[in-house]
Amino acid sequence: MGNFLECMGSFFCRQKNTNIRITLPFVCFLWQIAMIVLFGIFIRYDEESDVRQWLELKERNNITSDIENDFYFRYPSFQDVHVMIFVGFGFLMTFLKRYSFGGVGFNFLIAAFGVQWALLMQGWFHALDPVTAKISIGVESLINADFCVASSLIAYGALLGKVSPVQMMIVTLFGVTLFAVEEYIILNLLHCRDAGGSMTIHTFGGYYGLAISWVLYRPNLHQSKRLNGSAYHSDVFAMIGTLFLWMYWPSFNSAITDHGSGQHRTAINTYIALTSSVLTTVAISSMSDKRGKLDMVHIQNATLAGGVAMGTSAEFMITPYGSLIVGFCVGIISTVGYLFVTPFLEKYLKLQDTCGIHNLHAVPGMLGGFIGAIVAAFASEEVYSRQGLIETFDFEGEFADRTPGTQGGFQAAGTCVAIAFGLVGGAAVGLILRLPIWGDPADDNCYDDEAYWEVPEDEDSIPPVLEYNNHMIHKHQDISESNFSVEQS
Amino acid sequence: MGNFLECMGSFFCRQKNTNIRITLPFVCFLWQIAMIVLFGIFIRYDEESDVRQWLELKERNNITSDIENDFYFRYPSFQDVHVMIFVGFGFLMTFLKRYSFGGVGFNFLIAAFGVQWALLMQGWFHALDPVTAKISIGVESLINADFCVASSLIAYGALLGKVSPVQMMIVTLFGVTLFAVEEYIILNLLHCRDAGGSMTIHTFGGYYGLAISWVLYRPNLHQSKRLNGSAYHSDVFAMIGTLFLWMYWPSFNSAITDHGSGQHRTAINTYIALTSSVLTTVAISSMSDKRGKLDMVHIQNATLAGGVAMGTSAEFMITPYGSLIVGFCVGIISTVGYLFVTPFLEKYLKLQDTCGIHNLHAVPGMLGGFIGAIVAAFASEEVYSRQGLIETFDFEGEFADRTPGTQGGFQAAGTCVAIAFGLVGGAAVGLILRLPIWGDPADDNCYDDEAYWEVPEDEDSIPPVLEYNNHMIHKHQDISESNFSVEQS
Amino acid sequence: MGNFLECMGSFFCRQKNTNIRITLPFVCFLWQIAMIVLFGIFIRYDEESDVRQWLELKERNNITSDIENDFYFRYPSFQDVHVMIFVGFGFLMTFLKRYSFGGVGFNFLIAAFGVQWALLMQGWFHALDPVTAKISIGVESLINADFCVASSLIAYGALLGKVSPVQMMIVTLFGVTLFAVEEYIILNLLHCRDAGGSMTIHTFGGYYGLAISWVLYRPNLHQSKRLNGSAYHSDVFAMIGTLFLWMYWPSFNSAITDHGSGQHRTAINTYIALTSSVLTTVAISSMSDKRGKLDMVHIQNATLAGGVAMGTSAEFMITPYGSLIVGFCVGIISTVGYLFVTPFLEKYLKLQDTCGIHNLHAVPGMLGGFIGAIVAAFASEEVYSRQGLIETFDFEGEFADRTPGTQGGFQAAGTCVAIAFGLVGGAAVGLILRLPIWGDPADDNCYDDEAYWEVPEDEDSIPPVLEYNNHMIHKHQDISESNFSVEQS
Repeated sequence: MGNFLECMGSFFCRQKNTNIRITLPFVCFLWQIAMIVLFGIFIRYDEESDVRQWLELKERNNITSDIENDFYFRYPSFQDVHVMIFVGFGFLMTFLKRYSFGGVGFNFLIAAFGVQWALLMQGWFHALDPVTAKISIGVESLINADFCVASSLIAYGALLGKVSPVQMMIVTLFGVTLFAVEEYIILNLLHCRDAGGSMTIHTFGGYYGLAISWVLYRPNLHQSKRLNGSAYHSDVFAMIGTLFLWMYWPSFNSAITDHGSGQHRTAINTYIALTSSVLTTVAISSMSDKRGKLDMVHIQNATLAGGVAMGTSAEFMITPYGSLIVGFCVGIISTVGYLFVTPFLEKYLKLQDTCGIHNLHAVPGMLGGFIGAIVAAFASEEVYSRQGLIETFDFEGEFADRTPGTQGGFQAAGTCVAIAFGLVGGAAVGLILRLPIWGDPADDNCYDDEAYWEVPEDEDSIPPVLEYNNHMIHKHQDISESNFSVEQS
Repeated sequence: MGNFLECMGSFFCRQKNTNIRITLPFVCFLWQIAMIVLFGIFIRYDEESDVRQWLELKERNNITSDIENDFYFRYPSFQDVHVMIFVGFGFLMTFLKRYSFGGVGFNFLIAAFGVQWALLMQGWFHALDPVTAKISIGVESLINADFCVASSLIAYGALLGKVSPVQMMIVTLFGVTLFAVEEYIILNLLHCRDAGGSMTIHTFGGYYGLAISWVLYRPNLHQSKRLNGSAYHSDVFAMIGTLFLWMYWPSFNSAITDHGSGQHRTAINTYIALTSSVLTTVAISSMSDKRGKLDMVHIQNATLAGGVAMGTSAEFMITPYGSLIVGFCVGIISTVGYLFVTPFLEKYLKLQDTCGIHNLHAVPGMLGGFIGAIVAAFASEEVYSRQGLIETFDFEGEFADRTPGTQGGFQAAGTCVAIAFGLVGGAAVGLILRLPIWGDPADDNCYDDEAYWEVPEDEDSIPPVLEYNNHMIHKHQDISESNFSVEQS
Repeated sequence: MGNFLECMGSFFCRQKNTNIRITLPFVCFLWQIAMIVLFGIFIRYDEESDVRQWLELKERNNITSDIENDFYFRYPSFQDVHVMIFVGFGFLMTFLKRYSFGGVGFNFLIAAFGVQWALLMQGWFHALDPVTAKISIGVESLINADFCVASSLIAYGALLGKVSPVQMMIVTLFGVTLFAVEEYIILNLLHCRDAGGSMTIHTFGGYYGLAISWVLYRPNLHQSKRLNGSAYHSDVFAMIGTLFLWMYWPSFNSAITDHGSGQHRTAINTYIALTSSVLTTVAISSMSDKRGKLDMVHIQNATLAGGVAMGTSAEFMITPYGSLIVGFCVGIISTVGYLFVTPFLEKYLKLQDTCGIHNLHAVPGMLGGFIGAIVAAFASEEVYSRQGLIETFDFEGEFADRTPGTQGGFQAAGTCVAIAFGLVGGAAVGLILRLPIWGDPADDNCYDDEAYWEVPEDEDSIPPVLEYNNHMIHKHQDISESNFSVEQS
């Protein structure tokens, strides 16, 4: 199959043209208009954001204070998650020396589209009123939409610099759709707990992106090698992304957990796990260089692995030292992944993974899923109390007689579902993206903002014409490109 | 009048001198000392921040929990707004290749002064105790002060790079004063609703800045053309501003709306409108370039238009799809403004608008005012419930018998008041700024941090003296300036 | 003693080698494993984050709503503080032209280690259950851990560019330990109030860093002078740090103050003091330059002095104008410090203070401690009410009969304790750091990321080989370094 794809690819490649003047506006307008129509048909305020319903709810439930509105439980976390999606993911992808516009800009575009589509898709699966056929949205829906789109942004990490914005709109359209389905299977049918999305977001998003990247393999990508790396300041920009992801990860994992001790405990566990990832990342990064120098790639990415791996178990009673151990291990695993697995995948599996999402999302996410399964399986009434077990694992309704052990099994099954959705979905979407109509760049034109952005002339457009000693030096320097012409009279 | 001003201007220009060693410290000290005196006379804690009064209030109103303190309803939103004012506006204005210090630094200065003056001005109009003649401040006052100063920061956008910090202190002094008056007229006398300030903040601030810029027209500004543009990294810095504005705009619009469903709904509507602005901005930006390339100016600015345009109506029951439509339209209008209107204004109306605030604030703000009028006029008891109408539109006291239709009329009138205040006030302030004592730069010296900042020698002050093959090359390179001297022996 | 140290130093210096491939991973692994073991033995969830205990607590205390969980009082402030620690301090230290990786990266490393150790140290002193010998942690513990590590990050400011990451791990290990002890003495034994840590954090951290730097004096540091300065873009990066510190300082000071009016008032006071620091900083900075130009160093640092100086008194009834006056004065003092005191200290006291923490933390912190003492001493029942005095100053239990006057005395004593701990502790730690095994850089190799980081080839690794008119110009340009070879055929 790889061979067939390669042939097809080299045929298609001859026609590569990054002019997206027709396709990009077309896709944007078409999808945005579709969103307006579908929102008009389906989406309504929920009873805590609708003025009439909130007044009725307060009266009905004897709520004496507006502070009981879910807004005040979740809005601060929502804003933190929002920052992670747009600044965190966006700036993390500015690390390439000449693809910072594309990193932060296309992240912005696809996230803004994705959250709209996510409100619909997740609404149809989770919040459709069977009587009125309307979807009710509130602050928790906004958080979930941000979560949903995160999986597509993770996939973008593998594709960064190699695809057109039109392709990324396709990736997001299908990514959000697949997410809503796998999430429904994992959370509703298997009744898993996955508040921070180790399974649904990171495992799915990671394997989704890897599968797409595998199908889009570019044998001659080395022609763009000169641009596939960072510059000093672009690495500092990327640290903005890293730090906002790292700092707000406790909010990410706790944003939709249970009110009260649920949110409280989740934030603590995530905070603790992340601190320990930093130390092991630094240790392995230093060990791997013969002079002990640190690699910014590791610091920017592997330090976050603890947050990914705690996505499922942070709301459980994993204990503070359990969190430390998780962060400790995945920090090592993730850094080792950047050192050895990514080059291996590229060389032997023909898988080009620009940001190394395999090491930051796919593997830590999968491990997080299994860690969650184990922690759930060992949950005891002694630690949680009977009521605590019921609340934490939602052992209610048709799941009232599920035991922690069984729950652990289902959690593990959920992780496998996420992997399967990612791989199969990604392969299918990858095939769609191989159509030669999406405006992706040629192999020698990747990682270059010039393809899709009007890039400024740059710093030295200040006319620097200087004559000296029979030499005339015209200098039009660009932060990325320098052209010298030295004329001798 | 334009002619007269021009003559006067060319007379004054001969004396241009950017040395502000006397004026800037004088203004800073004078105004800061005035603030201390006026704060001493007028400003006190309100009953939720004063320890004695809060204890009394709890007892009097039978408040059982400190969580009922307004601090917990508003503080998270306040901090988001605060970030918008200092990082959002500040970094949005770093986009010029050599005016990043001035962009973020003077924004910092004038915002820090402005909020103090705003606490006083808004206090006198809205929170003066008639008995004690004291102003009570709490967290809502801080938010309102941030809002108030936003209008002056918007005006700074039109003037960026062309005025001295002393002039900006003047602009802010009068801007805050005018704001407090027009706000009093709009919110109290006309009894409009305008929680996110489409009228009071954006319309007023936009036209205020445009009028000043028009009076300060510089016919020879082309002499600074080489610096009136971005560099690669300065565009990435500006995206920090854009994204923090974009992400936190739901907090901006909801910060002072009604507790409970009011804040909840406002945040949702703003979030939704913003997403749709992003897609139409991208679409129009791509369509406008012959190769379909995106322009960073549009992405940095027009994506925010949805937030501006929802400033009035976000707290109403505009519906989610209504919000999408608003964002859709203003995204287009704003981008088209950057493409055609700004050049037109400069060429035919002699109006130089550095950041294009006409397209991001003036027009979307004005539209937001009228959208608010329409949505208010169509408010029905069926949708809001009787009590909901009263709470949302404050149909209480002397306004108890106002109907939604009437309210719509007043909202529209309020928008016109904001425009008028902006234009007239801005023209007057512009005349004051033409006095040749404020240290503004000459026409060939605009957009240059060198005028007001000690700019570092820069990256290559590392002595790079190299001898090679009878050549000696001394290189003192600066990120902005390169000097080459090639000596042949 | 200075002489003895110098001799010892010059002996040690001969062996300077920045290879930390053994020591850094060793320290990271050792300490992280120690943390896991100690967390396993000691640390448990508190009763608001443990699911069983929270359910019991709600029942026992008749708590009807989860919103009463301390999480909702403190989590938004916690996240703001978290941003200050990692982005605020981190980016503030990116201002050096070639030490941005080290600034933000080592800040990240030591903060991540420090908070773990702080949870333990502060836990042993403040939250150890005498029966079970367990430490209970909740969101307030996380805030306190962030606070605790801030003192070590302040110390890093004095040492920036001159020490190895291994040394910084040592500084943090001892810094956190000393902090916990002095905090115990100040807050528990002397029963001072110091919610924003003027004494415990800034005074201690400032003098701790200065004492270390004094012991580590490098007589030949001028050899690295070319790198001891900023570049245009590194100054803009540093403004990210400045602004996030400035904006979130109200959260820093109010994060652990009393629920209700306590947090509310603290935020207001800090906000007000900070605005006034900005104006006086700008005034003094402009006055000090013969053309009135502003210095970025002052804007980046002295504007924050108001926050530091309000760390103790912000929770008291200092009044809004009182806050303005504090900000006014310390803005001047701090800027004057940067202008005159730092050069003086370096020349005459042999004290090299990279970031000028003397002017931003040590002195404003100390002043803040004494201001707090004065404000406490003048607290009256008339202003606070009897109950308010008890709540604000914790005049309960064995301190029930303390008067405001006595309290003022103890506050002043607390400040002296903080200074003493900083100076003595710092000197001792400095001696440990002089051992020639920690991999610190040689005098001509300071302020250079090359020592500990794999620095990218940079922007122009795009092969720029150009032939023109018998000249071949090979250019390998780096944003920091340019090498030219001009061959004439």
